[in-house]
Amino acid sequence: MLIIGEKINSTRKSVDRAVRERDHKAIAELTVKQAEAGAGMLDVNCGTLDAAEEPETMEWLVQVVQEAVDMPLCIDSPNPKALAAGLAVHKGRPMINSISGETDRFNQVLPLVKQYGAQVVALGLDDNGIPADREKAITVGSALVDKLVAEGVAVQDIYFDPLVRSLATSPATVVDTLTVMETLGAKYPGIHFVSGLSNVSFGLPERRHLNRAYVVLSVASGLDAVIMDPMDQIMQALISATEALVQKDRFCLSYIKAFQSGKLNV
Amino acid sequence: MLIIGEKINSTRKSVDRAVRERDHKAIAELTVKQAEAGAGMLDVNCGTLDAAEEPETMEWLVQVVQEAVDMPLCIDSPNPKALAAGLAVHKGRPMINSISGETDRFNQVLPLVKQYGAQVVALGLDDNGIPADREKAITVGSALVDKLVAEGVAVQDIYFDPLVRSLATSPATVVDTLTVMETLGAKYPGIHFVSGLSNVSFGLPERRHLNRAYVVLSVASGLDAVIMDPMDQIMQALISATEALVQKDRFCLSYIKAFQSGKLNV
Repeated sequence: MLIIGEKINSTRKSVDRAVRERDHKAIAELTVKQAEAGAGMLDVNCGTLDAAEEPETMEWLVQVVQEAVDMPLCIDSPNPKALAAGLAVHKGRPMINSISGETDRFNQVLPLVKQYGAQVVALGLDDNGIPADREKAITVGSALVDKLVAEGVAVQDIYFDPLVRSLATSPATVVDTLTVMETLGAKYPGIHFVSGLSNVSFGLPERRHLNRAYVVLSVASGLDAVIMDPMDQIMQALISATEALVQKDRFCLSYIKAFQSGKLNV
Repeated sequence: MLIIGEKINSTRKSVDRAVRERDHKAIAELTVKQAEAGAGMLDVNCGTLDAAEEPETMEWLVQVVQEAVDMPLCIDSPNPKALAAGLAVHKGRPMINSISGETDRFNQVLPLVKQYGAQVVALGLDDNGIPADREKAITVGSALVDKLVAEGVAVQDIYFDPLVRSLATSPATVVDTLTVMETLGAKYPGIHFVSGLSNVSFGLPERRHLNRAYVVLSVASGLDAVIMDPMDQIMQALISATEALVQKDRFCLSYIKAFQSGKLNV
């Protein structure tokens, strides 16, 4: 499981302040904390800034984070200029968050994916928005993957996000996204699946139980990357347990290693 | 989800003492605690006693428990005489734990199922023991269900236990049991599935994470009864969350009700 740390995101007030004030130390601390907690990659997002300021801020942010840890980043913005600015200074192989089947976004982000040989988060939507049911989601998702592959992107560099919605308003959303992952996973061997873990419970109480059950089901259906708070050790333990249960952890070696390093003691 | 409380079992030292000393009060307290924690049925087992003492003890135990709460019991013994003694004094509709495809056990327990119109836990094994793989498990399970139905037992009175093993020694066991439940569930509409929640993690560290992930996956594949410690509120919350996620809880009503009664605050 690739854990992508979500915390360097300016929708969080403290991060918004830190990026605006160019507070090196605050960003570096948040970086190291997430890395130590088990993140294998860090998402960086400063999308609360004006479009004019965002590229320069992203450039600064990528550099500060990579000075703090030697780790690839998931450069996260709907703004192609901010993506380009972050990519230009990124060391190692980046992930771009995100491309989609929307014509404009596809055409603007694809050149960056190619130029940097990047891994890419592919959102399962197109010019008609988020598909209304699982059949449409499979059609839209397949079309996006086919287009990326036709452009020379390797299937194994695609991190497809099936876009789970809130259960409160979309009761079938989990069964839908599990089906989409199982179907596309069978159709495109080597493809990856990524998801955030909290949308599913939006609007419902005591969300952690829903988020936890969602991750267990998703891992069993093919999820192999999550954008999450790496400090959530219970969630990480549950992911590790699920991988052991569904034969994605031979001889439970990773589970036992996590135990030995004290990570399951939550 | 039917929660079958597991705590009145004489393999637990305090219960062994209580049944031997006919300690009314200790058994009644354990009964009420489990009922208050959300059990819909209670398993009663005094199998640590000699075969000669077990029937009389089971008779006492069933009466004491049903004096404390008005709830059906799951009468649990491999000893047909103990089952018969418990059933004779049981009020309401009992569950018998258990029948199996083993010739002797089938022939000894079937008459009791018929006589009391009981629900019955059906263990997926036969004279050759626990099936070695999922194909054999489906064959053995189907044969057992077919035999029960041919004898007049309604499919909806059968609680099939796919007998999950320890992951430590049987790496495919979870995928196997999920497949068995999905296959038999499709083949026998109305059948129920029951499982204990701790065998899967036997021999592994920090077992709760494995047990929790196992229950989430199992609920999604058809599990609708569990033999568990009803005081484990985190497990109950996770079960409730999973039912909401996989559309077994319309409009999340049960989840929200559990929240309102404070049960998700764990």
